[in-house]
Amino acid sequence: MANSDMSDQEWLLAPDPDRVGLTRSVTGTDHEGRKTALRVVEERPLTIYLNAREIVTAMTIGDYPEYLALGFLRNQGMVNTQDEITGIDYDEETATAVVRTAVVTDHEEKLAKKTRTSGCAVGTVFGDMMEGLEGVTLPDARLRTSDLYALAKAINTAPSLYLSAGAIHGTVLCEGRRPLVYMEDVGRHNAVDKVSGWMALEGATAADKVLYTTGRLTSEMVIKTALMGIPVLVSRSGFTAWGVEIAQQVGLTLIGRMRGQRFMCLSGAERLIWDADPLSITDEPRKSGRKGGA
Amino acid sequence: MANSDMSDQEWLLAPDPDRVGLTRSVTGTDHEGRKTALRVVEERPLTIYLNAREIVTAMTIGDYPEYLALGFLRNQGMVNTQDEITGIDYDEETATAVVRTAVVTDHEEKLAKKTRTSGCAVGTVFGDMMEGLEGVTLPDARLRTSDLYALAKAINTAPSLYLSAGAIHGTVLCEGRRPLVYMEDVGRHNAVDKVSGWMALEGATAADKVLYTTGRLTSEMVIKTALMGIPVLVSRSGFTAWGVEIAQQVGLTLIGRMRGQRFMCLSGAERLIWDADPLSITDEPRKSGRKGGA
Repeated sequence: MANSDMSDQEWLLAPDPDRVGLTRSVTGTDHEGRKTALRVVEERPLTIYLNAREIVTAMTIGDYPEYLALGFLRNQGMVNTQDEITGIDYDEETATAVVRTAVVTDHEEKLAKKTRTSGCAVGTVFGDMMEGLEGVTLPDARLRTSDLYALAKAINTAPSLYLSAGAIHGTVLCEGRRPLVYMEDVGRHNAVDKVSGWMALEGATAADKVLYTTGRLTSEMVIKTALMGIPVLVSRSGFTAWGVEIAQQVGLTLIGRMRGQRFMCLSGAERLIWDADPLSITDEPRKSGRKGGA
Repeated sequence: MANSDMSDQEWLLAPDPDRVGLTRSVTGTDHEGRKTALRVVEERPLTIYLNAREIVTAMTIGDYPEYLALGFLRNQGMVNTQDEITGIDYDEETATAVVRTAVVTDHEEKLAKKTRTSGCAVGTVFGDMMEGLEGVTLPDARLRTSDLYALAKAINTAPSLYLSAGAIHGTVLCEGRRPLVYMEDVGRHNAVDKVSGWMALEGATAADKVLYTTGRLTSEMVIKTALMGIPVLVSRSGFTAWGVEIAQQVGLTLIGRMRGQRFMCLSGAERLIWDADPLSITDEPRKSGRKGGA
C-alpha cells in the first residue's frame, strides 16, 4: 500500500555519527572570541589497488574502505559484474585497499596502456566512463511524489555525521518510500561509490531503486547513477547542463532542488505519479534542515 | 583607514552571470507539475597540457581556461615561480589548454616517471602537493573582524552565477576589506586554481591577501591556499580535521562556518583584531543568502 509508513522499517545501513574515528573534537574561537569545542569530520587517504596495480588515492572519512574500493572500480568500469571478486584486503596501517579478481581483466590492461600514453589516468578514467554509457537505457520506473516526500523527510531527520559535524556529503539508496543504505563521505563521489560497493557485495537489484544525494547533479554523478543501473536520481542541490543532457539521453529521472515541498524535475517527469498535495508538506524544521550543497 | 568603505571600489574581476555560454535555459517540471524554465550552469571538459605532456582533464564552466590551466599546474607544483611561461594556448574546439615553459622542467619529468610506476597520477599529484608544503610558514597577517564582515557582505550580495543559476562554487581573492577577484566554477578546486592563475599572470602579491571560498575547508583546499602563500582562508562551510591540522602546521588563519554574524576560527585566531560588534551585523537577507556547501 502506498500510504503505509514503510519508512518506519529499519535501515539496512544507517550513519553512525558516534562511531569512534569518524570525527574529532577540536577547540576553536567563535565570533565573540569565546573558546568553543566542536566536532569536525576526519579525512584520510585510501589508496585503491586492483590486484597488483595502484589505481587511485581517494580522500575519505575512512568507514567502509572495502565498499569504497570495489564501488570506485565498478563505477569506473574497471571491474564488471562478470568479474569474480576473490577478495578485498584492507590494511589500516598502510591505508590501502586491494580488490582481487579471479582473472586479471583487460580493463586493468587498458588502463595501464592508456595511462602510459596520456600521462595521467584522470582524463582516461572519465573517457572510459562515457564509453561505458553507450547503449545504456535505464529501465522504466514509476515514482510516487508521496514516496519522494517521505524519503526526503526520513533522510533529513535521520541522525548523521552531517547533522552532528557538517562538511560531509551523503548518498542514500532507497526503494519505494523506504531508505535502505545511507553512506556519508567527505567526497560526494565516495559516498556514491560506497553505495555501489555495497550493492555489488550484497547482490542488490538496481531497477527498483531510487538514489538520493546531497550533492549537485553534475555529469559525473549522473553517469555513475546510470552505470549503476538506477533509474531515478534525486538531490537537494542543483544541476549542471551536461548532467541534465546525459540524464535525458539514458532515460534517467532527474530531480533536483528538493527542499520541503519544492522540487524540480529536468528529465523523465512522465514517470512521476502525482499522488501528494505539495501544500500538505510542511517546510523542513530549521534545525534539522540540511543546507543545500552548492 | 579601516572604517572607510573600501568595498565600494571596483572589482578587478567580478562574475559576469549574463555572459553567453556559461548557462543554458532548460525546461523542467516543478513540484506542482507546472512546466518551468530555469537556467543551469554549463560544465565542459578542459584538457590541460604542460608543454607536450597531457596532465589532466578538468570539468569546468569554461571561462578563463588559461588561468585555470596555469593555476592548476602551479597549485600542483608542476610549474614554479622560477619557470618562465612562454605562452598559454587555448583551443576551444579541442577543449585543450597548453601551458608552455621556456625550459622543460624536472617537475614534468618527475610526473612522467611517477606516473609510469604508480599507474595513475592522482595519488602522485597529491603526494607532490604535500611534499611542497614542507618548510612552508605563512607570513604573519592581522585580520580585522570588521573587514571580515565587510568582505562577506560584499561577496554575498555581488551578482554571480551562484545567485542566478546555483550549483557552482566561488573563490574570491581579497585585500583588506576589498574583494578583488571573484572566480566561480562547477569544481571548487577550479575556482581556486583560476585565482592562482590570475595571481601568477598579474604578478600579484600573496602575503597581504585573504582568500574566501564557498567550499569546505578540506586538506586540499588548505594545501592550495598555503602553496599560494596566502595567510588567511575564510569559508561559509565547515572543516575537516586534516584541513585544520595542516592549517595549524603552516600558520594559516582558518575561519569557517561564516554566516551573518557567526564564524568559527580553528587556526591562527591570535591574528584577529576584534574591532566589530557581532550584534551590529544583520543576518543575511534570505534571498541573497548563499546556502553553505556541504
